[in-house]
This record gives sequence, structure tokens and C-alpha cells, in this order.
Amino acid sequence: DYGSLDTLVVGVCGGDGIGPTITAEAERVLRFLLADEVAAGRVEFREIDGLTIERRAEVGKAIPDDVLEELRACHVILKGPTTTPRAGDPWPNIESANVAMRKELDLFANMRPVKVPAEGIDWTFFRENTEGSYAVGSRGVHVTDDLAVDFCVTTTQGTERIARLAFDYAKKNGKDHVSIVTKANVIKTTDGKFLNLCQQIAKDYPGIRVDDWYIDIMTAKLVDRKRRTDFQVLILPNLYGDILTDEAAEFQGGVGTAGSANIGKRYAMFEAIHGSAPRMVAEGRAQYADPCSMLRAAAMLLRHIGRGERAALLERALDICMFEERRLTITGRDTGCTCEEFGAYVRETVEALA
Amino acid sequence: DYGSLDTLVVGVCGGDGIGPTITAEAERVLRFLLADEVAAGRVEFREIDGLTIERRAEVGKAIPDDVLEELRACHVILKGPTTTPRAGDPWPNIESANVAMRKELDLFANMRPVKVPAEGIDWTFFRENTEGSYAVGSRGVHVTDDLAVDFCVTTTQGTERIARLAFDYAKKNGKDHVSIVTKANVIKTTDGKFLNLCQQIAKDYPGIRVDDWYIDIMTAKLVDRKRRTDFQVLILPNLYGDILTDEAAEFQGGVGTAGSANIGKRYAMFEAIHGSAPRMVAEGRAQYADPCSMLRAAAMLLRHIGRGERAALLERALDICMFEERRLTITGRDTGCTCEEFGAYVRETVEALA
Ligand SMILES: CC(C)[C@H](C(=O)O)[C@@H](O)C(=O)O
Ligand SMILES: CC(C)[C@H](C(=O)O)[C@@H](O)C(=O)O
Repeated sequence: DYGSLDTLVVGVCGGDGIGPTITAEAERVLRFLLADEVAAGRVEFREIDGLTIERRAEVGKAIPDDVLEELRACHVILKGPTTTPRAGDPWPNIESANVAMRKELDLFANMRPVKVPAEGIDWTFFRENTEGSYAVGSRGVHVTDDLAVDFCVTTTQGTERIARLAFDYAKKNGKDHVSIVTKANVIKTTDGKFLNLCQQIAKDYPGIRVDDWYIDIMTAKLVDRKRRTDFQVLILPNLYGDILTDEAAEFQGGVGTAGSANIGKRYAMFEAIHGSAPRMVAEGRAQYADPCSMLRAAAMLLRHIGRGERAALLERALDICMFEERRLTITGRDTGCTCEEFGAYVRETVEALA
Repeated sequence: DYGSLDTLVVGVCGGDGIGPTITAEAERVLRFLLADEVAAGRVEFREIDGLTIERRAEVGKAIPDDVLEELRACHVILKGPTTTPRAGDPWPNIESANVAMRKELDLFANMRPVKVPAEGIDWTFFRENTEGSYAVGSRGVHVTDDLAVDFCVTTTQGTERIARLAFDYAKKNGKDHVSIVTKANVIKTTDGKFLNLCQQIAKDYPGIRVDDWYIDIMTAKLVDRKRRTDFQVLILPNLYGDILTDEAAEFQGGVGTAGSANIGKRYAMFEAIHGSAPRMVAEGRAQYADPCSMLRAAAMLLRHIGRGERAALLERALDICMFEERRLTITGRDTGCTCEEFGAYVRETVEALA
């Protein structure tokens, strides 16, 4: 319960690539909306540097120890995308900082809303966030030069806690349809366990209609205008959650428009659903990066810390700027609107609404 | 080389669920197009029963031994979807017959074309078909009651042969863009190996533009009307190939319209990209199943056995029936057109074109 804290500490981690650019806009609007609380000392913003690829490469860790310590001293974190080294890059083969942070802070639930009001789309994805195909991460095995093995891990506890959170969310928010998405017809052991446990937990929520789908056909269902509006809350293992939410976000305007809440028992971290877009940086287009993903993440942060009215205000402003006015559209490349200009437009809209 | 055979044997396996209904239409049009060769004894159709869920459950095997023997006596196989038992079903937990057949007959490449002429979409997916997350299949491990583990396996040979087939296809068919799709930023060991080997092989094809994408963002790219027409040939590990091709097929009219060629050194099997649709059967809608997926598979079979002109004829007829005339649309549910009626319409169109 954040209400009982003397000072709530919000850590801000800009990340790499387009990260600092888009995170700056999210921080600005948060500072704007929480100005009175900051002035009164009830909220403190804390900049956390050092989650850059250079620093991580230098210490050879996904998250440097001192950064992790700083993160652990915060209550909630606003985090920009971070660059994950790829084969051929000059960096050592360290793990994604997102993935590492989710595990280190035990942020087991990745909640990702996607909404297209005009088309009746209102989906909330609950992605399991610490295990599945991400569990063992970069520690798969090169058994021989010719044979590589990775692992997929599903635990009872890990599955039950994400399922329960999703069903509780559905119940609390008047949603009467939950869909479980796996590939249990082939990945029988782990996905089979995941599906089975979700179905068990579903029994505690008798008012909710529950069905299950395979991830392959689910990617098709999201495209189907006649069927897709039927989906409300979806529960997915880590990898399918990763995949399906990028597709889903595209209907809303692209991954650049989608934020996410990474939630654990002790910590919560709010970020974009996308990566650091090294291609955009390489092409010199970083200033046109879409800040909507981080602005949505900021709204989720506000709601999470119990500032529901301010969250609603920011969401309303984003709905106007993204969907209603369309004065400045969401992809800067097409309109020439920069990340900074869009951030200012959102703040003005918030001000006008307040 | 099928041309040197006295008699080419085409095995026909109806499968389960909507399988027999849609396979019958594909066999009919094949028999129609190959009538002279059947009469002359150069082609023989052989019905292979026993790939039903009842029979498989009885012997407790994904493919009964006698069925496997019959399959091995054929040169090429036309196969309808088969039911994979799920937890809660009355059947034992046997592996998917598709997956088993691909492994038993070493059908390492799953080629899946998706075309929407009016929108400039012309994609050919090359899905690795025997390893990845499907390699160990139903033999994952329940380490304890609380911990389940599955495996993902990538081999050098398995990756190189699919990559080479895809690049050869691109070269032979005048395609100048090949995209490699993995999740190598997270699944670093197996997907990293897959990506790396594909990039090595790409060096032997200097005229071809090669790029690589992560599967999550790729599902969004396929939705993006401005960008998606840029993709031509795509190479994917097993699971991502499974997922992305269902989404892709949706733009063409649904998974019910997409066929696939499962190709190995000795055998080749042609099937729909979808499952046996137990939901449709349960709802009494099996007679409205869309046979296009199996008709497309039949065309791929014809092309594969060197009957390119007849393949082209069938493809042209399908393009007319599916895209141009739209007299009967592809989803029977909406038009009241049955699977059988659509099959007849395609045969009439073939006849009119011949
Ligand atoms: C950047 C990447 C490691 C990350 C993931 O795969 O989880 C991203 O795609 C996401 O969905 O947050
Ligand atoms: C039915 C299922 C086992 C199969 C698969 O996962 O490969 C299907 O989805 C496909 O793509 O052919």
C-alpha cells in the first residue's frame, strides 16, 4: 500500500537507443501531474543512470550491481527500452536488461492493454513474465558444435500467480471473458501444465466465461474483425505474450503506442512493450520516436500507485491525442512531428482537461 | 526424380475431424487432373485409412505401425488434418500425427505460400519442420509436481538444410529478399545458432538482400499495409513458422485457405496449415469446412511431382474462385456454400480453363 509511505520513490531509467528520448517525455508528464506531491515531499523522482549498453558491456552484466541496488531502493520504476547485444555487435553476449530486471525484481506479471475504441477493441493481456522460454535466458547449452539446446520452464507457483492476477483483474473490472493461450497440443509438458493450472483457477471465478486457444490460430483471430472484439482478458506464457502483444499493438497504431506494467509483490516497473529501436537510431530518426508507449506506461504507473484520477486524466489526454484529434498522428515519420512535440501536445491536453 | 518412375504412388490420408471432408475435394480434383495418367498406370492413388484418433488411441501411438509402413510405400502423400488429443479428452496423451509424420519421414522443410494479389502480398514461408520447440515433442519432463521442463533443439545440419532450400527457392524464383525470423535476443543459444547459420549461408547468395527480424515485431509488420509487401521469402524455426503462417493466412482469407508442402529428401507430404477443427465438428458445421487449404496443397503436390502445367491450371482456378469471382466466398458459414459445392466449383473452373 503506497498510501502509507512518507515518500514514494519513483526511479527513472532512460535506457539506450530511443529510450532516453521517449522516457524523458513520460517523466515530464509525470512530474507535471505530480508537481504538488513532489513539492510536498510525498513523491521523489530519482534518476538512475548506468543502464546503458556501454556500462553493461563494461561490467559484463545485464544490470550492473550498483544499478540493481539503486533500483531496489525505489518503490516503482519508469524504464525506457534498453539495447540487447546481438551476435556481431561489439558487445559481449549479455542478457536483455528488461528480462534480467523482471527476474531480479520478481516482476511476475506483465500487463499489456491494447485499445482501439473506434473498432471495439479492448484487450488486456497478462503475460507471465519470469519463466517459460525466458527462464533460463542466455544460459542454454551448446552440447556440441552441431547441437544447441534451450529450455522452457513452467512452475506451479509461477503459473498460478499470473492466472489469479488475471482473473482477479477480470472480476474487478467487470470483464466476463478470459482466454488462455498456449501451444499445449505440441509443447505438452510446460504449456499443458500452464493451461491445466489456469483452468483449475478459473473454477474459482464462476461468472467468467473461459476458453482456450492455440497461439498460432490466435494470431489469426486478432486480425479477424468479426471475431476479435469478443476477446477481453488473455493469459499467456512469456514467449506467446511477447509475440501476441506486438501484433495486438499494431492495430492501435504500432508497438510505439503500447505500454506495459511489470508487477511483482514488492516492486513494479513500467515500460514500453518494444525495444530500443537501434535501426531508428542508426538512420538518425531517434527524435521522431513515438513516446506514446512510455506515456501509456506512465499512466499505468499513476494508477498503480493509487493516483487513479491523474491516471485517468493522462489516459483521456492520450486517447484524444492518439485517436480523436489526430492532429498529430502517432508516427512522427509520416507527419514530421517529433517525440518532444508530441509530448508537449499531450501535456497541453492534460492541462486543458484538468 | 519422379519422371523416371513406372508408377508414382500418391497416398491419401483423410485424417480426422473436418479432414476427410476437405481431403475428399482435393483428391477429386487431383484424380480429375491426372485421369489420363491414372488410366495409363503412371499414377496410382492409394487410400490410407487408420490415421483416425480412435485407431491411434487404440494402439497408443501418434501413427500406428501399419499406417507408417503404408506411408513409406508411397512417393508423395496428401494428408488431411488429424486430431491431437488434449488434456481432458478421452484419448491418451499421444503426439500430433502431423508432427510425428514430419519427423518419421524426415520432412525437414515446411513451405507455406500466402498470396493476396490485390494487396501485393506474395510471401513464401520456409518453416523448419523437425526440430526447434517441436523436437522433443511430448517427451518434456515433469521434474517435480511443481516444475515442468520442455526443450528446444537446433542442429547445424537441420538449420543449414532449411536455409539452403529457402535461398535456392528465392534464387530460382527471382526473389531478391530473404528475411530470417527468430527471437535470438532472448533465446540466444538455439535461435542465435539458427540466425547465425542462416546468415552464413546467405553469403553464398550475393544477389539476395537479407535481413533479420524478431518474431514479436514480425507479427506486427505483417499487419502493416505499408511495409508488409516488402517481404518475399521468410525462414523461421519451427514454432515461429507455425505461429506466423496462421497470421499470414488470415489476410488471404483464413487458415482454411492455406496449403503447405512438407518436403524431405525421400518423401513429400502435402497438407492444410490448420488442424482438424474439432469445434466445427462439435457445432455440426463440418460440411461447411473450407477445402481451399487442401486444394492449395494438391496444387503444390502437382508441382512437386513435375506436373507443373496442371498445377498452374489448378492454381489459376483457385485464384479465380477465391479472389476474382467471389461468387462463392471462402467461408461457407457466411454464404451457405458447402465444402462439396466449392470443390465442384473449382473443378468446373479447371475444366473451363483447360
Ligand atoms: C526487448 C525484448 C527483450 C523484450 C522481450 O522479449 O520481452 C520486448 O520484446 C518486450 O516485449 O518487452
Ligand atoms: C495441428 C498442429 C500440431 C500443427 C503444428 O503445430 O505444426 C499445425 O498448427 C500446423 O501448423 O501444421
